[in-house]
Amino acid sequence: MATLQLAQRMENVQPNAIGELLKFGADPALISFAGGYPDGTLFPVEQLNDVYRVAILEQGKQTLQYTVSDGDPKLRAQLAERATRKGTPCALENILILQGSQQGLDLVAKMLVDPGEIVVTESPTFLGALIAFNPCQPRYVGIPMDDEGMITDVLEEQLKAGLKPKLLYTIPDFQNPTGVTMSAARRKHLMALAHKYDFMILEDTAYRELRYRGEAPPTLKSLDDDDRVIMLGSFSKILAPGLRLGWAIASAPIIQKLGLLKLAADTQCSTLNMAAASLFMERHDLDGHIETLRAAYLRKKTLMLDMVRQHFPQEVTCTDPEGGLFTWLTFPKSFDTTQFMRDHALTKAKVAYVPGVSFFPVDGEPNHARVNFSGQNDAMIVKGMSALGALVKQEMAKL
Amino acid sequence: MATLQLAQRMENVQPNAIGELLKFGADPALISFAGGYPDGTLFPVEQLNDVYRVAILEQGKQTLQYTVSDGDPKLRAQLAERATRKGTPCALENILILQGSQQGLDLVAKMLVDPGEIVVTESPTFLGALIAFNPCQPRYVGIPMDDEGMITDVLEEQLKAGLKPKLLYTIPDFQNPTGVTMSAARRKHLMALAHKYDFMILEDTAYRELRYRGEAPPTLKSLDDDDRVIMLGSFSKILAPGLRLGWAIASAPIIQKLGLLKLAADTQCSTLNMAAASLFMERHDLDGHIETLRAAYLRKKTLMLDMVRQHFPQEVTCTDPEGGLFTWLTFPKSFDTTQFMRDHALTKAKVAYVPGVSFFPVDGEPNHARVNFSGQNDAMIVKGMSALGALVKQEMAKL
Repeated sequence: MATLQLAQRMENVQPNAIGELLKFGADPALISFAGGYPDGTLFPVEQLNDVYRVAILEQGKQTLQYTVSDGDPKLRAQLAERATRKGTPCALENILILQGSQQGLDLVAKMLVDPGEIVVTESPTFLGALIAFNPCQPRYVGIPMDDEGMITDVLEEQLKAGLKPKLLYTIPDFQNPTGVTMSAARRKHLMALAHKYDFMILEDTAYRELRYRGEAPPTLKSLDDDDRVIMLGSFSKILAPGLRLGWAIASAPIIQKLGLLKLAADTQCSTLNMAAASLFMERHDLDGHIETLRAAYLRKKTLMLDMVRQHFPQEVTCTDPEGGLFTWLTFPKSFDTTQFMRDHALTKAKVAYVPGVSFFPVDGEPNHARVNFSGQNDAMIVKGMSALGALVKQEMAKL
Repeated sequence: MATLQLAQRMENVQPNAIGELLKFGADPALISFAGGYPDGTLFPVEQLNDVYRVAILEQGKQTLQYTVSDGDPKLRAQLAERATRKGTPCALENILILQGSQQGLDLVAKMLVDPGEIVVTESPTFLGALIAFNPCQPRYVGIPMDDEGMITDVLEEQLKAGLKPKLLYTIPDFQNPTGVTMSAARRKHLMALAHKYDFMILEDTAYRELRYRGEAPPTLKSLDDDDRVIMLGSFSKILAPGLRLGWAIASAPIIQKLGLLKLAADTQCSTLNMAAASLFMERHDLDGHIETLRAAYLRKKTLMLDMVRQHFPQEVTCTDPEGGLFTWLTFPKSFDTTQFMRDHALTKAKVAYVPGVSFFPVDGEPNHARVNFSGQNDAMIVKGMSALGALVKQEMAKL
């Protein structure tokens, strides 16, 4: 009987799509463009070794111990100073340290969303966000995108027609999966709509600092006059994902409530990793390191787009992101990227990407693929994408 | 309007009792026996520095990167081998790495407990478990304890009378807060009841390896014939809480489902910390380190109990735990330990403990206190407990 109860309960757990992708990433035989992996050869290992040495040998009594659930106060202050300097004014009490920004998705949904309430996202959107929101059983409404991001006029039409969102989730900068950035005008329009129609916004800025060209539009949080934006940031893409450190920026009352949910969920982040990140910002040049990443990823992005143009049929288009880790390929409507990956890409070219259908909150389109250009080296980008392009050409010729 | 919605929603978040305790622990002016802090002077800093150096400099491309959500397979295998060696047979697929065992409390409740369903606990029980379970809105049933742990005859009576638990949560070894260990006979009785009345058991073994005298009774997991026990373990008390690493041991299907919930909640634990823990078990002597902890904590426990006997009125009793970090003081029924702490202990003696009332799932008794003996040094134990005892004597004389 218990087993039956349990089996029924387990039906509610969502398919492990991201987990499967991470497993692809761990198979050395495969050239995977599926993950959102940063380039492991660019991790600042000498500097990280330095800060862990200091944290353990000089401060171990504190850094190996429990600490407060909101996170290391010194790190919170540093992140507030950094956000303020980069155009999003805030103070220590506006920062909560998280187990990666993924934890922010989980805790914010827990705090705000009851079953049946509406969560608006870009369409397509980040799969990990859907997985985090799903246990709260929201109803999803996806808003289409163009090359300025979420089409806020479409959102406004739906709001006028009676849509009542509880929460809107967006990745305004180099969106996952499309790579597209929301324009400044759209950001202002979205904030005006949030004010008028009274919904909260969850702004995911995991990629924002990886900008390769052009000026950054303002964050939604910096345009937020009435505490309706919760902004998420992360060390995963600018330092190392293995530390599992992200943060939320929001009003002090929201941060306090998220802190209580954090306490219930896992007590706190690793004291040691928080101390190491804090020491890194103090003793080393995080901004300089990010410059190095930008240059390397711009080169890889250029190579990736060259490979698509050279090896793929002309009917296949890709976005040209101003930053971030992904380009979004669009195939003719009759081309199913899931089937193609299973039957051809994985088996014949030993190449993986993420079939685009996974990223749609509703009404998934079959003919897209998310391709990561940060994780593989130049030779693998050339080898993998030329093999993939040749296979695509073969298959499309049969259509 | 959004602010109002948010305010109403936030009412559901539980008071930050553990968070407040951790803040006490961070105030250097206070002698706190409130936390569950291990002794920071015993952290193996040289060995930890060694394993972090190796993990970062020699394996950084992997250890600073993302990994699979279930956790480092090498660490999972090591933990399975270790559990098997210590009497709880299991394999890699039975292990999930967690962000401390606290995360196990959250994920297991999410997986199993719907609003209104019954969770049975010892009465009193671990506050952090109640905080983790509360968002699932269970109904709590507390079973009283004696010096053999949960009185399973009382549980059986209630089951016969129609009680239908979904989950039973227990800390069989050196229970938090009482320090009491469940006898082997009670463990067998509990397993028979779980089988007959069909409920799941969550067995929290965070303190189990810190045994100071006597033989360990078998774990509930080792008595589990039909996959109804989920056992939680932790590195926090045997290595360092600052790493935030724990694990669950359960049947492979349960581990898979918990892994999906883990993925949604925070993607994975810190790859670096998992690698460091794995290297520690490989390159250093974890069992030898635990022997050092056992000797030190036995000395502190003996000192703590001596202090209670010397400085407190005879009417105040304390448990004499066979291991773990806590003793449980019981005062006369009219003595309110919360009031006393607020009005006297904190202000006059600058001493903190945890008022016992917080630990009762229902019907809290006012006249207990949880006192930790691992976190403070000998001098502070003498100073704090003699000051506290003198104040208690003064106040009890007035009753």
